[in-house]
Amino acid sequence: MSRKLTFIPGPIEFSDNVLNAMSTPSQAHTSPEFIKVFQSALIKTRKMFDSSPDSQSQPFILSGSGTLGWDLCGANFISSPNDNILVLSTGFFSDSFANCLKIYSNNVDIIEPENFGDSTNLSTLENKLSEKSYHLITITQTDTSSGVLQNIEEISKIIKKIQPNALIVVDAVCATACETLKFDSWGIDYVLTASQKAVGVPAGLSISIASKRAIDIAINKSKPHAFFTDIKRWLPIMKAYESGNGAYFATPAVQLVHALNVSLDELLSINDGTIDERIHLHKLASDEFKNKLINQLGLKLVPNSLDIAAHGLSVIYYPNNIKGSDLLSKMAENGFTIASGIYKDYKDKYFRIGHMGVSAIGERKDELNQCFEALKLSLSQLGYEN
Amino acid sequence: MSRKLTFIPGPIEFSDNVLNAMSTPSQAHTSPEFIKVFQSALIKTRKMFDSSPDSQSQPFILSGSGTLGWDLCGANFISSPNDNILVLSTGFFSDSFANCLKIYSNNVDIIEPENFGDSTNLSTLENKLSEKSYHLITITQTDTSSGVLQNIEEISKIIKKIQPNALIVVDAVCATACETLKFDSWGIDYVLTASQKAVGVPAGLSISIASKRAIDIAINKSKPHAFFTDIKRWLPIMKAYESGNGAYFATPAVQLVHALNVSLDELLSINDGTIDERIHLHKLASDEFKNKLINQLGLKLVPNSLDIAAHGLSVIYYPNNIKGSDLLSKMAENGFTIASGIYKDYKDKYFRIGHMGVSAIGERKDELNQCFEALKLSLSQLGYEN
Repeated sequence: MSRKLTFIPGPIEFSDNVLNAMSTPSQAHTSPEFIKVFQSALIKTRKMFDSSPDSQSQPFILSGSGTLGWDLCGANFISSPNDNILVLSTGFFSDSFANCLKIYSNNVDIIEPENFGDSTNLSTLENKLSEKSYHLITITQTDTSSGVLQNIEEISKIIKKIQPNALIVVDAVCATACETLKFDSWGIDYVLTASQKAVGVPAGLSISIASKRAIDIAINKSKPHAFFTDIKRWLPIMKAYESGNGAYFATPAVQLVHALNVSLDELLSINDGTIDERIHLHKLASDEFKNKLINQLGLKLVPNSLDIAAHGLSVIYYPNNIKGSDLLSKMAENGFTIASGIYKDYKDKYFRIGHMGVSAIGERKDELNQCFEALKLSLSQLGYEN
Repeated sequence: MSRKLTFIPGPIEFSDNVLNAMSTPSQAHTSPEFIKVFQSALIKTRKMFDSSPDSQSQPFILSGSGTLGWDLCGANFISSPNDNILVLSTGFFSDSFANCLKIYSNNVDIIEPENFGDSTNLSTLENKLSEKSYHLITITQTDTSSGVLQNIEEISKIIKKIQPNALIVVDAVCATACETLKFDSWGIDYVLTASQKAVGVPAGLSISIASKRAIDIAINKSKPHAFFTDIKRWLPIMKAYESGNGAYFATPAVQLVHALNVSLDELLSINDGTIDERIHLHKLASDEFKNKLINQLGLKLVPNSLDIAAHGLSVIYYPNNIKGSDLLSKMAENGFTIASGIYKDYKDKYFRIGHMGVSAIGERKDELNQCFEALKLSLSQLGYEN
């Protein structure tokens, strides 16, 4: 094998068409040629989040990493440092989001998982919501550190029942395009994601969508918190491009937007112009992979039940007597980059394999089978007996 | 001509090798393969700014646009909203930088140019510095809106003579790699730039370097202003990569960093591993182009004398009776995208042609001659007689 395949939970392997789009020769950011591409990418981003223009939501495609989305949330949708914020944590990335929001608010509460690998206990959530009023609640749809999937539809219903005024924010960095999310019909206020996971585009884009209710809060802030993350400045720009006109605030990442446009075509074209079939294929691939991990290799997953295991990656405890760094090195020798753990004291106890996009469900999906065989081989080379 | 060439002052035309690097197949951001590339890009970024590791300065390469650099300055180097800030303005981009810094400080003074097209009057600056003490002073080396070049070396000397404690910040977005800047020996504290101009890489990277003195201010801030722009968080990451180790805060733009690494090789390899020859070639190309604009076409430049005209672009008044939109359309028909004006009431009075990188001084430098011929043709098609 000439190069290692990247099977971490992002950046993922990219399709040839997406990589070719990264080499698009230069275009002015306000040229008619680029405006058309940016318009198309914004319209398709809206479809990816299942949000209609009638809802007056607005997608944002900015230069930056996924992390920038946390600041976009803090800078725009928290009105005062006294706002009560609730973070539903399922791992390292939920906790980091909380750390970011603590810069913007002095009142950030966290519901920790009872045990590592649990999703949020819904009774605990109901109790918390009955005790204290929140301005904004964040949910990490898939925490990339634990592979735990939150039930956004169910959680949103609970929040809307008890605290209909609370803004609902979803970190979907590791979930977009491989887990269902219905922005409008579930009444979500802000979803943030990034390009390099199931969206299928090299790292460098912060992609998000805000509801009218959230945008109104941003617009009514008395003073912006920062310049680049001020969506009041981005709003007319994104509206202009989405309607087929150029506008300037900061130079967009022209080549990455081209790549996004190509990738969104791949994501939405499978079936009927929605993302549903793509998500379904991720579930099938994930179920098959996890089934083999458990039943053929006798491995144990970090999520404490299969119905809360995310479909874009598998998060797996090392078997007894297998040293993490040995397994990762062996996997590299056998052609695959996989990822170590990243959550507190657990970080040396488990590893992570991403299975999103072209090498999991696309034309190169046999690579996921090869990854499984490489894992089987690596474990046996390290003396593991099932 | 199959596609229009992009001769705006950024994004510029990119070399084939840089565009090919944009299509680098996926690599994990902490893989040995990528760490080597990021390390190399950081070391060469340091060389581009003429800064030695001995100075304990630190380059930063982040996902984002040039604009993000303004927030990096405001969020990290302004300690309190009471800090006195001085902005030396030569156009739209200096003023926008001031608008950004007004979010971080309530005391932002601006020295406006006496007339549009002037650089900062040095006596005015000396007087201002004698009257009031400043924490931080910003200079836009080339304001992309006016094409005015500031004399950073001279201005730094004046600041250091009168107010040695003031931090000196240079916006070099349209100057890096086409104007001389000696970070260490001139005693600059922060330089911010972006990828898509003379650095020669598609848009999407905020590139900057901070002095030890500036970093110490950031480190000693009692509370971070934001999360993504907190260089206290980025410092260990950049140090790790520069020394050949991986680290994680937010996912770097892997493909853009590859492209930067390739471009920096092109920038530094011409002569002796410094950027000097590259800058010299930009001066030669600019002088020749401007000479032809003035002497062959009888056009008038916006900068009020040739010694304050930047070398990465030419900013030119429309001749009488030529409508701006007509000239830009004609130029597009004749194969070139050029840029309109962008400064206040002057914006419909002038246009801008970028001449940076491969199509101005590289293997494709004849394209700049073709651009001149297209301008001559377009003007004559619109009835212009010199």
